[in-house]
Amino acid sequence: MDVFEAIEKRHSYRGPFTDDPVSRDDLRRIVQAGLLAPSGCNAQTTTFVIVDEAAEVARLRDLHPRNQAMRSARAYIVGVVDKTAPPVYEELSFQVEDYSAAVENILLAVTALGYATVWIDGWLRREGHAERIGEALGLPEGKVARVILPIGVAQETNPKRPEKKPFEERAWFNRYGAGDASA
Amino acid sequence: MDVFEAIEKRHSYRGPFTDDPVSRDDLRRIVQAGLLAPSGCNAQTTTFVIVDEAAEVARLRDLHPRNQAMRSARAYIVGVVDKTAPPVYEELSFQVEDYSAAVENILLAVTALGYATVWIDGWLRREGHAERIGEALGLPEGKVARVILPIGVAQETNPKRPEKKPFEERAWFNRYGAGDASA
Repeated sequence: MDVFEAIEKRHSYRGPFTDDPVSRDDLRRIVQAGLLAPSGCNAQTTTFVIVDEAAEVARLRDLHPRNQAMRSARAYIVGVVDKTAPPVYEELSFQVEDYSAAVENILLAVTALGYATVWIDGWLRREGHAERIGEALGLPEGKVARVILPIGVAQETNPKRPEKKPFEERAWFNRYGAGDASA
Repeated sequence: MDVFEAIEKRHSYRGPFTDDPVSRDDLRRIVQAGLLAPSGCNAQTTTFVIVDEAAEVARLRDLHPRNQAMRSARAYIVGVVDKTAPPVYEELSFQVEDYSAAVENILLAVTALGYATVWIDGWLRREGHAERIGEALGLPEGKVARVILPIGVAQETNPKRPEKKPFEERAWFNRYGAGDASA
């Protein structure tokens, strides 16, 4: 799929998935796309656990009953980072930037291969969700699940997509908030 | 360009650019790709200033004399966020995730259209660089330049790329650090 088409088609899918499986080859290709994303000072801070075995999938399915995608996913990709990010450039760490760029590549790869997903992030940081997933995946001390992507083939073919502001409200040439974007 | 090819070809380019221009149509298409990235709670926290006028380009060129890409760029895309990110999901803000996903889309679009760039981020937070760029672009109080991407046609056709760890060291199936990724 053309990269601009993938960027255009990508959207957060929160509906139910069909029973179609997600092949391990596809999952590997999807995560490899994430690993090719840039990282601050090439520190490659993000790692991934790909959950596709029935028993493991079943454990994760129950964690987020309000989210239909989480409840019916055929596989999950969990992005793992350090609980305390070590600095890589003077006092700065780029762990959040790193995993976010990797996840965006993953979302585009998911889209290109005909699957759907949604970036679930803040929810993990609430009510012990990250800790329960960490236990299920055997994360070592010091590592935390920062993002989870439930993956499958979308059952809803035309889900509602949140509205995006137009270009003119978010981008300008040469000066912030410039009146005429074509000037 | 196929999305997997763009992901594979994308790399941080720090060398000099040729004199070839970057058309405004291409810049608009590149930034639009960024705007289509997801954002936490669809808050669309990132805005962009695209610098392509000769006088403005000249002002930015002098800021980072050690970086050849910054010194010879034909255009710049500057990602702008709030100095203090307002919470969008309970107490959480996703501003860093948002702009990082947008930048990754932009990097892929840059690659697909035959240009090169490098994600410059931490440098902005040092020695008043973000403040100087903010002044040049007329950023309002409360907004800050968080990322700058110098863009042009690469002069070096085969630049050195940092090595990436193999899949097996960064991704596993069903359990963190699982010995056999194909199991």
